[in-house]
Amino acid sequence: MTKSIGIGLVGCGVVGTGLLQVLQENATAIEGRLGVPLEVRRIAVRDPAAVRSPLVPQDKLTADPMELVRDPDIQVIVEVMGGVERAYEVVHAAILAGKHVVTANKALLAERGAEIWNLAEQHGVDVYYEAAVAGGIPVIRVLREALASERVLAIRGIVNGTSNYILSRMSAESMSFADALAEAQAAGYAEADPTLDVGGGDACHKIAILATLAFGQRVPADQIPTEGIDRVATIDIAFAQRLGFVIKPLAVARVVGDSLDLRVHPALVPVEATLATVHGALNAVAIEGALLGPILMSGPGAGAGPTATSVAGDLLDVARNIECCAHARVPSRGFRQVALRDAKLRDIGEHRGRFYLRLTVADRPGVLGAITSALGDNDVSIEQMFQDGGGQRSKRDETGPVSVVLLTHRATERNVRAALASIETHDAVVAPSQLIRIEE
Amino acid sequence: MTKSIGIGLVGCGVVGTGLLQVLQENATAIEGRLGVPLEVRRIAVRDPAAVRSPLVPQDKLTADPMELVRDPDIQVIVEVMGGVERAYEVVHAAILAGKHVVTANKALLAERGAEIWNLAEQHGVDVYYEAAVAGGIPVIRVLREALASERVLAIRGIVNGTSNYILSRMSAESMSFADALAEAQAAGYAEADPTLDVGGGDACHKIAILATLAFGQRVPADQIPTEGIDRVATIDIAFAQRLGFVIKPLAVARVVGDSLDLRVHPALVPVEATLATVHGALNAVAIEGALLGPILMSGPGAGAGPTATSVAGDLLDVARNIECCAHARVPSRGFRQVALRDAKLRDIGEHRGRFYLRLTVADRPGVLGAITSALGDNDVSIEQMFQDGGGQRSKRDETGPVSVVLLTHRATERNVRAALASIETHDAVVAPSQLIRIEE
Repeated sequence: MTKSIGIGLVGCGVVGTGLLQVLQENATAIEGRLGVPLEVRRIAVRDPAAVRSPLVPQDKLTADPMELVRDPDIQVIVEVMGGVERAYEVVHAAILAGKHVVTANKALLAERGAEIWNLAEQHGVDVYYEAAVAGGIPVIRVLREALASERVLAIRGIVNGTSNYILSRMSAESMSFADALAEAQAAGYAEADPTLDVGGGDACHKIAILATLAFGQRVPADQIPTEGIDRVATIDIAFAQRLGFVIKPLAVARVVGDSLDLRVHPALVPVEATLATVHGALNAVAIEGALLGPILMSGPGAGAGPTATSVAGDLLDVARNIECCAHARVPSRGFRQVALRDAKLRDIGEHRGRFYLRLTVADRPGVLGAITSALGDNDVSIEQMFQDGGGQRSKRDETGPVSVVLLTHRATERNVRAALASIETHDAVVAPSQLIRIEE
Repeated sequence: MTKSIGIGLVGCGVVGTGLLQVLQENATAIEGRLGVPLEVRRIAVRDPAAVRSPLVPQDKLTADPMELVRDPDIQVIVEVMGGVERAYEVVHAAILAGKHVVTANKALLAERGAEIWNLAEQHGVDVYYEAAVAGGIPVIRVLREALASERVLAIRGIVNGTSNYILSRMSAESMSFADALAEAQAAGYAEADPTLDVGGGDACHKIAILATLAFGQRVPADQIPTEGIDRVATIDIAFAQRLGFVIKPLAVARVVGDSLDLRVHPALVPVEATLATVHGALNAVAIEGALLGPILMSGPGAGAGPTATSVAGDLLDVARNIECCAHARVPSRGFRQVALRDAKLRDIGEHRGRFYLRLTVADRPGVLGAITSALGDNDVSIEQMFQDGGGQRSKRDETGPVSVVLLTHRATERNVRAALASIETHDAVVAPSQLIRIEE
């Protein structure tokens, strides 16, 4: 009799069901690769009576995840229940019981990661989480293993599909943020409460995970400068287009001297850049290595299929370790705990780059002079400036406010913000200014 | 005293020197990930006296690779010497001596792979070869591990940088193939003898490797229908552009029923497709999974830095296996030998798709009628057809031959070729026809 690797599945919604499907359909190939079959022995769901999918064997269902943790025939717990507290209890108990864990739960790692990593190392178990970042794109495995010998210089990602979808729709259809969000919610790309997505919090957690894998540094996610796409106006997208840029929801992690430059914000990206071509709900991660140069990976960032694929990939990896008794062969975060150090985050004021600025001012003599003086006084030089419709003044009310749009040359953010503060004291400025970073 | 993993480096040209650089510069990070240092103990080169790089310690040099194979302190042989026969001797001896092997040598795998895989499995050693396909893009690791539980439906790759560079230059500058090739040779993107690159042989070997990893089937590379880019004329690129396509050097591996559709040829790709945006010497691989959907990876396909990065990534993986005594944790080709089966290749005549056809005919009455009849008789329907300059006849000699360009609807290749054979019997056809497949 062939032995098998026993799996306990906690949560059986779309991702869990997708996983059962992939394991069932590909059972022969998986055994051909691994040498032994993977077998889902127990499935814990809140309400076993409510499960109707033909993929889910009724006799394996239980309402108690701890039954799976206690089962000696289960070696790997797959946590796809979501949420934080209950999921943490299960994962914690699983690790204490010496079981390996595969999870797709980014919120869990963001909030309870520190405890989980420590426990996993103490108990010599694997905790894999490919599905937690960029869905079906195997970026965690690539950073943790393929590029493990390489010095990564920078990561630039579109890692929140909801934000990318909304900006893509605003861009393609000149929609407002509110309309694009409503459409994304209707299409199932956005949650009823979209704050974590459109506010940048989700991308912030993800770039923190990637930065640790790439740089071997613990990153305090709550200290990463984070701006959401909810501050982008349709008019900014139109102005950006006219200037040869697309606005994309970026998460950036760069090495700058002995600090890390970490940021999450919408950015103007040149139309010819590869990230500018990543549309809709797709995700993409561009990695720049010292010797490697740039590579790009793109694909579906969410959804049952891509998430289940990543979970299944992790599962096979963990199963291989079990077969070889090679537990904790690769540390969960790429580096052993003892080798990790605390990241020193660069102050966003030190950021140097070009900036897109949009000022809303009363159209009267002297305003442009005041703007250019304030910028000049702060060492910010102007690459390009235009007012409103770029000479076509037909659309504006002759007596109302106008938009003044500027692209700066490379400058430090501190100086640009000082100039803006000074400009905003001018009584012709009738609305808050817009500042969006340009990422080259 | 910390023990270390001993490496023997065979060959120390640009890739070997790049590897020494990456191991030296990233020694701290590598030890932080692995727990022990990697140490290059011996370096075999043809002429030790000729080595001048400050990265190469003179006291480690030898002219005899077998010294490395015999050294009990060396656990991994890195083969970056190139060539086939001598490299095979070294790799063969290394495996017999129980040493693991990392190689960047695609020609070696293409010609002696069968013996190497058998030996490696018999002796329980790892043979890793990420650098052999698509340079710095970790596509082998992604297929072998990240997607190991997924059913791959199709792989479409631009895996020969020389061909992509030449077609990109022909496209951007309306250059001839010969001029673009000469430029590629001057820029170091093409060999003095470019046959293997521009004839498609190199891409053929690479897609055979990827197909085995993805589908678990042994692929006879010499039976893959292979066409080079040397048959693409500048005029085809211009016509393709007018029709909304870019011509790209593709390698394709698809599952069709119980057969594999494997092909290497230049193809018309819609301008909006992701592979159409991969320019110059870059490589890219698009993978379509049953549940995953499509992912794309792109990056540098050759060069010392990207190749050394892939070799170093493999080296760290092998070192992790050594540390865990998890030799042969992952079979070299993803599947265990016993699970591999022989691929059944689909006859290219069975290929169904759209086609670009260019006929060179004398401009006289009845010719177009003969062409359309021949196509119709063979069940090939025409999507679009134009003659020469698309109505602008200024460029052609009024009495000379004209080009008739056709896009077909989806048809089987056998039928299209039968129609062409029939058309070519017409005495108005004054030159061989051009046929280029369209890849959607």
